[in-house]
Amino acid sequence: MTVEKTSYTVSTETSLSFEDAVEEARGLLQEAGYGVLSEIDVAAKLGEKLGVEREPYRILGACNPALAQQGLDAEPELGALLPCNVVVYELGGRVHVSAVEPQAMLSVVGNEDLDPIAGQVREDLSRVVERVGETGERR
Amino acid sequence: MTVEKTSYTVSTETSLSFEDAVEEARGLLQEAGYGVLSEIDVAAKLGEKLGVEREPYRILGACNPALAQQGLDAEPELGALLPCNVVVYELGGRVHVSAVEPQAMLSVVGNEDLDPIAGQVREDLSRVVERVGETGERR
Repeated sequence: MTVEKTSYTVSTETSLSFEDAVEEARGLLQEAGYGVLSEIDVAAKLGEKLGVEREPYRILGACNPALAQQGLDAEPELGALLPCNVVVYELGGRVHVSAVEPQAMLSVVGNEDLDPIAGQVREDLSRVVERVGETGERR
Repeated sequence: MTVEKTSYTVSTETSLSFEDAVEEARGLLQEAGYGVLSEIDVAAKLGEKLGVEREPYRILGACNPALAQQGLDAEPELGALLPCNVVVYELGGRVHVSAVEPQAMLSVVGNEDLDPIAGQVREDLSRVVERVGETGERR
């Protein structure tokens, strides 16, 4: 399993099915203290609105309450960037799991009080991505 | 009414009540072609999880299907940054409406195919924020 980075995400491929990967990501987020506050079925939504077919794509909006509280106290507009997303999607039949890189997102905010929070979220979400990849390897 | 900018948001104060501002933002988003795909009551969630009291804070996750489709075709991981948020919150008893600045968010992506999409979303969401402010002035 290889963890890859873009400028704004940490991601991996998994051999789990799409639905299993979503369920695994959801469970691992909860275990790490992150509630899933929103869940968007992008493929279904775009299918319904545009009549197009897309490969499965799900957005899980994750939030650790204590870190969100600290972040909002330090930066009232921070909600514009919350929750932190973990996405599961198929591309060419392969299943990918990807988490937003909070340090990249928060670089545009420019409030250094957020740095330790971003560091913690980064560590937690990267670990969730890795573990979804590992679970695929074990099955 | 004054529209203010941070490095990552466009925002204004409104004389509407919190609930009226949420309803107005939701209606204006729909009118502009943006579905509200997620709605998070941050104050209620943090109250429930941490037992704290916060002023009202709502996150509306907005998405224009055609623009999302184009964005995801150009950048498969883009879902990590979607939907685009409009937040309504009280701070010291004053009601603020604020939209994420997509050009700031997408600057971390570094894919210039997204520039025209970000420009359109920016225009649409800024107009929603302005109009919520104007509605407050008219009442």
